[in-house]
Amino acid sequence: MKIAFIGIGNMGGPMALNLYKAGHTVTAFDLNKDACDNVRAEGVSIASSALDAVQGAEAIVTMLPASQHVEGLFLGNGHGLLASIAKGALVIDSSTIAAATSQKVAKAAEAAGIAFIDAPVSGGTGGAIAGTLTFMVGGSDAHLERARPLLEKMGANIFHAGSVGAGQTAKICNNMLLGILMVGTSEAIALGVANGLDPKVLSEIMRRSSGGNWALEKYNPFPGVHENAPACNGYAGGFGTDLMLKDLGLAQENAMVTKASTPLGGVARALYAAHSLAGHGSKDFSSVIKMLQKQA
Amino acid sequence: MKIAFIGIGNMGGPMALNLYKAGHTVTAFDLNKDACDNVRAEGVSIASSALDAVQGAEAIVTMLPASQHVEGLFLGNGHGLLASIAKGALVIDSSTIAAATSQKVAKAAEAAGIAFIDAPVSGGTGGAIAGTLTFMVGGSDAHLERARPLLEKMGANIFHAGSVGAGQTAKICNNMLLGILMVGTSEAIALGVANGLDPKVLSEIMRRSSGGNWALEKYNPFPGVHENAPACNGYAGGFGTDLMLKDLGLAQENAMVTKASTPLGGVARALYAAHSLAGHGSKDFSSVIKMLQKQA
Amino acid sequence: MKIAFIGIGNMGGPMALNLYKAGHTVTAFDLNKDACDNVRAEGVSIASSALDAVQGAEAIVTMLPASQHVEGLFLGNGHGLLASIAKGALVIDSSTIAAATSQKVAKAAEAAGIAFIDAPVSGGTGGAIAGTLTFMVGGSDAHLERARPLLEKMGANIFHAGSVGAGQTAKICNNMLLGILMVGTSEAIALGVANGLDPKVLSEIMRRSSGGNWALEKYNPFPGVHENAPACNGYAGGFGTDLMLKDLGLAQENAMVTKASTPLGGVARALYAAHSLAGHGSKDFSSVIKMLQKQA
Amino acid sequence: MKIAFIGIGNMGGPMALNLYKAGHTVTAFDLNKDACDNVRAEGVSIASSALDAVQGAEAIVTMLPASQHVEGLFLGNGHGLLASIAKGALVIDSSTIAAATSQKVAKAAEAAGIAFIDAPVSGGTGGAIAGTLTFMVGGSDAHLERARPLLEKMGANIFHAGSVGAGQTAKICNNMLLGILMVGTSEAIALGVANGLDPKVLSEIMRRSSGGNWALEKYNPFPGVHENAPACNGYAGGFGTDLMLKDLGLAQENAMVTKASTPLGGVARALYAAHSLAGHGSKDFSSVIKMLQKQA
Repeated sequence: MKIAFIGIGNMGGPMALNLYKAGHTVTAFDLNKDACDNVRAEGVSIASSALDAVQGAEAIVTMLPASQHVEGLFLGNGHGLLASIAKGALVIDSSTIAAATSQKVAKAAEAAGIAFIDAPVSGGTGGAIAGTLTFMVGGSDAHLERARPLLEKMGANIFHAGSVGAGQTAKICNNMLLGILMVGTSEAIALGVANGLDPKVLSEIMRRSSGGNWALEKYNPFPGVHENAPACNGYAGGFGTDLMLKDLGLAQENAMVTKASTPLGGVARALYAAHSLAGHGSKDFSSVIKMLQKQA
Repeated sequence: MKIAFIGIGNMGGPMALNLYKAGHTVTAFDLNKDACDNVRAEGVSIASSALDAVQGAEAIVTMLPASQHVEGLFLGNGHGLLASIAKGALVIDSSTIAAATSQKVAKAAEAAGIAFIDAPVSGGTGGAIAGTLTFMVGGSDAHLERARPLLEKMGANIFHAGSVGAGQTAKICNNMLLGILMVGTSEAIALGVANGLDPKVLSEIMRRSSGGNWALEKYNPFPGVHENAPACNGYAGGFGTDLMLKDLGLAQENAMVTKASTPLGGVARALYAAHSLAGHGSKDFSSVIKMLQKQA
Repeated sequence: MKIAFIGIGNMGGPMALNLYKAGHTVTAFDLNKDACDNVRAEGVSIASSALDAVQGAEAIVTMLPASQHVEGLFLGNGHGLLASIAKGALVIDSSTIAAATSQKVAKAAEAAGIAFIDAPVSGGTGGAIAGTLTFMVGGSDAHLERARPLLEKMGANIFHAGSVGAGQTAKICNNMLLGILMVGTSEAIALGVANGLDPKVLSEIMRRSSGGNWALEKYNPFPGVHENAPACNGYAGGFGTDLMLKDLGLAQENAMVTKASTPLGGVARALYAAHSLAGHGSKDFSSVIKMLQKQA
Repeated sequence: MKIAFIGIGNMGGPMALNLYKAGHTVTAFDLNKDACDNVRAEGVSIASSALDAVQGAEAIVTMLPASQHVEGLFLGNGHGLLASIAKGALVIDSSTIAAATSQKVAKAAEAAGIAFIDAPVSGGTGGAIAGTLTFMVGGSDAHLERARPLLEKMGANIFHAGSVGAGQTAKICNNMLLGILMVGTSEAIALGVANGLDPKVLSEIMRRSSGGNWALEKYNPFPGVHENAPACNGYAGGFGTDLMLKDLGLAQENAMVTKASTPLGGVARALYAAHSLAGHGSKDFSSVIKMLQKQA
């Protein structure tokens, strides 16, 4: 299949590569030259612009930083990309953005005879490289089925969350909960350690009890518990504090629109914001435990 | 073995019964007559007082509501039970109380030649009846090994958290985290539902993603997701809001002593307190989701 | 002066009237017919549309519910009101909206040769009627000086917060702080009362000590302390919970854009949201104290 | 009058001196030798022990760090000071401790024929030196009237909060509110500054609007606004973060006993705890604003 891939950074790059390796014709584009060079080095064609990339494409996959980029790309100011995409083509937007933006773009796409699904991912750069991402999809059954063969080349789990925008909502609900879990798990371990408990022993007890959660399972914030977790690597790599801050912000933004109440989500966002202001924005988000530990 | 069991309410009663059914000689006591009658009806001997119950006992198991009851029972005002327990006996305190109180009683017990471990439980009344409780034990290896044969009759998991008081600390760390997980999971589901998502679909997505936790696994707060959860039974039974409030209070009390920072634990406590003030203290703690849902 | 006034509800109506009574020629408009009838009954001319109202106006004052209304009115979809306003006219937007929206409209206005200031108010409907509002103005000195004679007819205090958008920012910073003060004051009084203290005595002690704040001065949330406060009138009138919720939401939205950390602002927003979900959205915002009090 | 003064540190020292300067016979004691030397240098007699100090005293004033010190001093383990105080004497405890401890000591004092009031203070070391402290008194009218002439030598405001313990409750309610106000004010100013507003201008707008509070009046956390505030002196002096942490902890402890809900008080405590863990425990509590500001 002829695929255009826009946004080939740390996440989009390996995703585009997995489609290419699966035998698809991929034409990619990114405003960042280094990103383009990295992917070109693996054999993928690089277009001179997004407009160029989508010429004749049957499917367009996008992986962009934020709502304004997706809206700007597709809708522009009277000269968005939708006008240049072939009727009948399928757009898969894997960016994590506001559900309202997904819905706005989808509506315009539909009017132009173009299929659209939102398909944000979880699984990080490791999952992007390994092709084991989780996709949370919003859109019609029919559109999802068209997208499935491509999604399966990039990911291991494909969830259908509901109609357009539902993928985004599921993603931010999950990530808000993840942000809360990580802070809560950090508080519990720090409290135990302040009482003289061994963080490994306490973590194992809670993992197998009613406090059990993903962080205790795979991503312990305390150094020395999970050997492959960022905590054992000085909180390098992983999922950055500033990315978690963005997702918690999307959750708060959504809560405002729907008048929802998210007390812990709000506090978690403020803590990550403070952690970022203190200079730790690029460290893995599990480093938030340092806010709760005595500094030498 | 000759065992005294003090405190035979909803939790202690079935625990005493499991020891009795395993062939031990159990003499029980409770200030509440109905509690005594229930256990007596199953064949267990009831003593006329706690003092009476411990005469000649090799092991004493206690299951009392709060710190002041444990301290009052064992240390009293110059006439505590320790003075009447046989030298060399083993005390297993399964109450959930302040770690400092466990340590205070253990010290006095040691001075009197009596072994002491704190062994608070999780698993609820269902676990107490089925003999599948989880014990979190604080005390020496030797004392735990003496207690193990008895604990195995009452529970399925036995964790050694550390020295005396560590069982209590592990319990409140776990339960603080549980309180946070339940509120966080409630927020995430309520936010998704406010966006039109199906609570079952969203719960399943998060359960299999990085938001995964015990509540999504077994104890979903949204009605209709987990058929055996209190949410499907009008939030009756289960683990009461006021019990969660007590445990979150113990965590806060401990945080004050150790100068620990527990931002989400503090907010979670305040939310459960507000939920209790609104009249829901006896409902299962997962009913906290109602604070986040539109009331008709 | 010939003035157009768009948005003549509970706040805008009395403001328009005060300009009219001061001798200005006021032509008003509102989508709501009742609002128009109320103001017409006092002698003010009602236009058939916003477009009609601004014909020949030297100053245009707007008082609209939210960002999208202001943006829609002035910028529209290629047919906004700016195109129909006379060059050299002055726009005073008294709506409480996102600072970013004020800046967007101001930029377009400037390009069209129209002066623009944001001038959100505090003081409530009482202040609007009495002409004692506080204006927080964002814009150039020159534009503020042009607006001052009109603002003085509607308000008693005029603060110059900075350049365009600064009025909005000052307003939401103040109102976020007000939301926090009200919850904090409610917590402190509820805690004292739970300990048997007299709410009047405690309020007076705190008012004259380091806990002193505007709520203790004029707007005590406990019934029976300030005789003119909404608390003494069943929390009717005043500043509604849903309005406070909107302002706290604008503060959170702004915090996301600027990556600011607002832990108490976030919790306060969540509490007001829960209070609104429980059915108290139209009650005065000081009724949030009921969340912290035992319900019969 | 013959007065014993126990606890003559930064607060108690100047208080004792003010009583001495007013012509009373003061015999003081402190476990800290430097504290004793400082006060002796001013002419006050120093006793060799607390027991020694109270011999023949008509009034005993105490200023101790925490609940356990007050309980230990007066009740001891069967050999507390109450047994050595003359019948009919008056005890004024100015320590900030748990209300429950005040009540426990007062009950024992009454049984021994000794009058007791709790009279914690606010106003800091500056107020202690100047004799302008605020006293919040719990106890009977009669006991307060006996104490008044002494309190007037040490303070400028004397509030009668209620029966024994009420002084402590009023103090912690006020200080919890102060902790909340300081964080809230810091959030509001930091948000405004992140938007480019001038902190002085914004502070002045809020001070004169509904966000007005004691911090904006006298103790602005942003450097350069109030020239005598600790913020203008590198956050040296003033009221330390660890002291605020202690008071917020007492409030939380009280909230647990009374099952009160204090959401903002809980978050504020956690933030001060994190601030202390980061190494700022001895800085003035208004330095909490640094948690919300971008660090270079």
